Amino acid sequence: MSRAGSSVQITELETMAKLSRPNVIVGIPETGLVGTIATSYLVDHLGLPEIGHVESDLLPQVVVVHDSEPKDPIRIFGKGMLAVVVSEVPLTAKLSYQLASELVIWSKAKQSKMVIGITGLPSEARVESAGDSIPMVLAVTNDGDLRKSIKAIGAEPFQHGMITSTYATLLRRCTSLGVPNLTLLAESFAEFPDPGAAAAALQVLNKLLPIAVDVKPLLDGAEEIRLGMRGLMSQTQQTIQQQTAQTTPGVYR
Amino acid sequence: MSRAGSSVQITELETMAKLSRPNVIVGIPETGLVGTIATSYLVDHLGLPEIGHVESDLLPQVVVVHDSEPKDPIRIFGKGMLAVVVSEVPLTAKLSYQLASELVIWSKAKQSKMVIGITGLPSEARVESAGDSIPMVLAVTNDGDLRKSIKAIGAEPFQHGMITSTYATLLRRCTSLGVPNLTLLAESFAEFPDPGAAAAALQVLNKLLPIAVDVKPLLDGAEEIRLGMRGLMSQTQQTIQQQTAQTTPGVYR
Amino acid sequence: MSRAGSSVQITELETMAKLSRPNVIVGIPETGLVGTIATSYLVDHLGLPEIGHVESDLLPQVVVVHDSEPKDPIRIFGKGMLAVVVSEVPLTAKLSYQLASELVIWSKAKQSKMVIGITGLPSEARVESAGDSIPMVLAVTNDGDLRKSIKAIGAEPFQHGMITSTYATLLRRCTSLGVPNLTLLAESFAEFPDPGAAAAALQVLNKLLPIAVDVKPLLDGAEEIRLGMRGLMSQTQQTIQQQTAQTTPGVYR
Amino acid sequence: MSRAGSSVQITELETMAKLSRPNVIVGIPETGLVGTIATSYLVDHLGLPEIGHVESDLLPQVVVVHDSEPKDPIRIFGKGMLAVVVSEVPLTAKLSYQLASELVIWSKAKQSKMVIGITGLPSEARVESAGDSIPMVLAVTNDGDLRKSIKAIGAEPFQHGMITSTYATLLRRCTSLGVPNLTLLAESFAEFPDPGAAAAALQVLNKLLPIAVDVKPLLDGAEEIRLGMRGLMSQTQQTIQQQTAQTTPGVYR
Amino acid sequence: MSRAGSSVQITELETMAKLSRPNVIVGIPETGLVGTIATSYLVDHLGLPEIGHVESDLLPQVVVVHDSEPKDPIRIFGKGMLAVVVSEVPLTAKLSYQLASELVIWSKAKQSKMVIGITGLPSEARVESAGDSIPMVLAVTNDGDLRKSIKAIGAEPFQHGMITSTYATLLRRCTSLGVPNLTLLAESFAEFPDPGAAAAALQVLNKLLPIAVDVKPLLDGAEEIRLGMRGLMSQTQQTIQQQTAQTTPGVYR
Repeated sequence: MSRAGSSVQITELETMAKLSRPNVIVGIPETGLVGTIATSYLVDHLGLPEIGHVESDLLPQVVVVHDSEPKDPIRIFGKGMLAVVVSEVPLTAKLSYQLASELVIWSKAKQSKMVIGITGLPSEARVESAGDSIPMVLAVTNDGDLRKSIKAIGAEPFQHGMITSTYATLLRRCTSLGVPNLTLLAESFAEFPDPGAAAAALQVLNKLLPIAVDVKPLLDGAEEIRLGMRGLMSQTQQTIQQQTAQTTPGVYR
Repeated sequence: MSRAGSSVQITELETMAKLSRPNVIVGIPETGLVGTIATSYLVDHLGLPEIGHVESDLLPQVVVVHDSEPKDPIRIFGKGMLAVVVSEVPLTAKLSYQLASELVIWSKAKQSKMVIGITGLPSEARVESAGDSIPMVLAVTNDGDLRKSIKAIGAEPFQHGMITSTYATLLRRCTSLGVPNLTLLAESFAEFPDPGAAAAALQVLNKLLPIAVDVKPLLDGAEEIRLGMRGLMSQTQQTIQQQTAQTTPGVYR
Repeated sequence: MSRAGSSVQITELETMAKLSRPNVIVGIPETGLVGTIATSYLVDHLGLPEIGHVESDLLPQVVVVHDSEPKDPIRIFGKGMLAVVVSEVPLTAKLSYQLASELVIWSKAKQSKMVIGITGLPSEARVESAGDSIPMVLAVTNDGDLRKSIKAIGAEPFQHGMITSTYATLLRRCTSLGVPNLTLLAESFAEFPDPGAAAAALQVLNKLLPIAVDVKPLLDGAEEIRLGMRGLMSQTQQTIQQQTAQTTPGVYR
Repeated sequence: MSRAGSSVQITELETMAKLSRPNVIVGIPETGLVGTIATSYLVDHLGLPEIGHVESDLLPQVVVVHDSEPKDPIRIFGKGMLAVVVSEVPLTAKLSYQLASELVIWSKAKQSKMVIGITGLPSEARVESAGDSIPMVLAVTNDGDLRKSIKAIGAEPFQHGMITSTYATLLRRCTSLGVPNLTLLAESFAEFPDPGAAAAALQVLNKLLPIAVDVKPLLDGAEEIRLGMRGLMSQTQQTIQQQTAQTTPGVYR
Repeated sequence: MSRAGSSVQITELETMAKLSRPNVIVGIPETGLVGTIATSYLVDHLGLPEIGHVESDLLPQVVVVHDSEPKDPIRIFGKGMLAVVVSEVPLTAKLSYQLASELVIWSKAKQSKMVIGITGLPSEARVESAGDSIPMVLAVTNDGDLRKSIKAIGAEPFQHGMITSTYATLLRRCTSLGVPNLTLLAESFAEFPDPGAAAAALQVLNKLLPIAVDVKPLLDGAEEIRLGMRGLMSQTQQTIQQQTAQTTPGVYR
């Protein structure tokens, strides 16, 4: 799907046609790589097939290799009522803005039930406990009914503050186009990949959607993931610094 | 309201139609965050409803969350003869120029009686007294009659110097389009949010407009505001440094 | 006067129509702020009325306040056979180039007799004498007859070297359009505002034009001017460094 | 061959018409200069004639002199079923992207059998053994059949990780246009030119294609090459740093 | 002569029409300012009249003053079968590329017999001997016949390496348009103006062309030139650093 004025295109495989009013879950590498870890694990665990990818001349010149096969760095997986967008590269400000805008238009066209963003929120408690604390998951939504259910799905309302970067644009565009949006922010390490925070977000997802993801293997393999994702963490931190994208409370009330 | 050649649009809610020759008060985070603190307090204190917001691809990717609801970072509040524009994000030079230009065109279209800019002026006396001094409020206007009333409303004429950034463009555009402009500059901390300076500006406003804003709660909550706005202060200082926007006397006479 | 392809416009007040084949004197803040000090003093001393100003989206977002009135940062004053262009802000390279080009086209359209640029030339002698030396004024012209009169008006011919920035473009454009140009370079401090150098340039002007400017008040008020213009001096030096605009001898002969 | 929207053109000599479904081998200076060393040696050793070159206003202003003759910095050599593209200058991100895209379109038009990229992969083992280790050559391909033959040609499958810069775009564009691609990554020094790694890649090529390149002269002349290419190595490292092009494993699985 | 798509124009005086299949000699300030020193001396020594100059909005804002007369910084001198292009300002990458391209088109239009570039090549021997060594002059040409005569005119063939910046583009464009090109590179100081290297290049020119330039006055005045050109040398080095224009051997063979 390519539109005039956009330098981001969503290329669909034939299997994408089978999606039915999907919940669209988005994972972009930002704080603690929580979005990418959670959505990658979800795709693997549910065995979701690849149904499309994102093309853009704003993307870095990168090929990702999995099981010896070259792959695009931003792919879409899914079937039935579930679609998952996973990015394995951090996004510059311009790509972040355009990808988020295009994903919401695409979700609207697919009659998406809800767009769900998953990411991390830097937490000093998480750092001080060296990861032993159970991360709280904060949630923001543009849907009044859903707002009442936040505690019921095991999350806490995010009351005052700012959401930035890709997830902010996803939320604003959803509001403009009338698409329900839920953004989950798991308390996370800022400097290290945080599989524990990703697991906490997935447990909220378990209560929200008709899925049952066992996060134990994710927690057991946490150390390996942290080592394996050092490179992406370091690229992500460089990109975030360039954007001065911060999720800080800082607003007068 | 969107015009060709501008990348800033003012999106109006239906309630905006009820404005009647409004005084338009503008608060942008610059010196001491005086503009944002004063206008946010004014909106809360008078219970003004949200009647519109600003959209632009020059805006940072940000969603502001208040009482668990996601909001745009630059919003317009008001009713009857009063409209208040509040920005909760600092503006880059290009956005500052375009937003100021667009706001004056919009004010003209709304048959605005006056555009009133509120901001701070870095003051060494304020710093040396650790905030105990009562801040003087300086005023500049392009309206000959109003200039004679400056002392009557408790302000001092700003006699020689420079006004920069958003408030300079507001003033110049008002002059070009024949809209009266009053710019209030309260003596302020340069490095810290200054609710006391915001209160001083509001007291001038109390004498100018048929409003009666009690600034005591603002002064009582000053410490809390200073802490809560550290993040915005730091982003604002970075933005100002990039603009080398300074309000310094420096002109030959 | 606005032309296609230019982002600089000269806005004329009605009184500008009364100019009659004017000598156009240009003062831009460069070395020692000599141009701005000399032309500002000239305007005040002769009581010349404001007859226009310069608009451009290349200008910084600045309003200059004089006697409590907001003013444009680049204005044109004059009457009869004299027009004076005064800038109170330093010019970036692009604005410098376009303003100089536009001013020469405007001078040509006004059937200007001569364009006279006034500026400073960094002088070690001036620095070593702590300003007690009487500054020499060097002169360059594209007019063969005028070149013979340089000594007669109390200046010295500038024999070998380079002229840069706004004054270079003024001179080149005058040559292209067949307008006589005289550029006066008074020996000056490089790091401080130099009212003494401005006075020396004005004394050359006294011999060239039918004016009689008493420079004694300028010299008496020198200390005050130096203090008052520190801010502009510092902005000018930053701008010059960005341009690496230098007036250095450096050419093979 | 020049196409609209591209600032890269491939200029063909008449002899290029004789190519017959060629394998296209590409050597760009990246890690260890492996691509440039291997392809330059191949061209010399097989005595392949020059059949074209690349023109672009994105190229640096450079003429390469060989045997007193001035040459273009990116040239194409070949005959029959073999074409070799050799760059003697590092590529900026924009040129890298456009050249890779244009080369794949050109290969498709020439009915190329396969596009083969040769480059290096930074290896700590290579550094620790001071170059005495025999470099392993990793291989990635978008062709399922070829993937099964990787071990048979003396290479190892590259199982998980990232490929970046020119070679990534070559691979992605080949996949888009349905052209088989094989990318060979020889373990290499990151900081020094590595003729030994180039030799290892050529030995894989010997098993893949009907050529028989003796790499002994390349190994014997290694020291001389390392000295001669210091300048290009240093330029390449500067260019890579600007791109933050890295070939690092860093992806979650 | 102005063409679409070029921001460089060659303005011709009437006397330029008298050129007859000229050899075009080009001197741009690069290594050791050899090009500018040699061509300036040549123009003075042969008393060649000014016949044109270069205009471009890419040029710095500069007027050069010689004998009290303001001049353009890039001028063309000549008569009969000789034209000399002299730049007294260093060229940014974009201007360098466009000027070189335009000069070759202009030379072709003038039915130029040959374009001759004169510049320096950084030499450690030159530095170590403190300038007492006699500089070797290296030569590159795109003309097979001329290549055989290089030793006969007292130069040495430049066998392997790179030519960069303006002289590289001159050479490549000459080759594209079928104009013979000879580039002379005299061993030179990299950090100081080198009149001795310029003299060595002129002595090669004496053997190539029907001119007889006595270089003794150039060598006698060397110290004065070195002092007088310090400013241009420093600007040139800044410009070269920005371009990372280097003339280094660094190519595999």
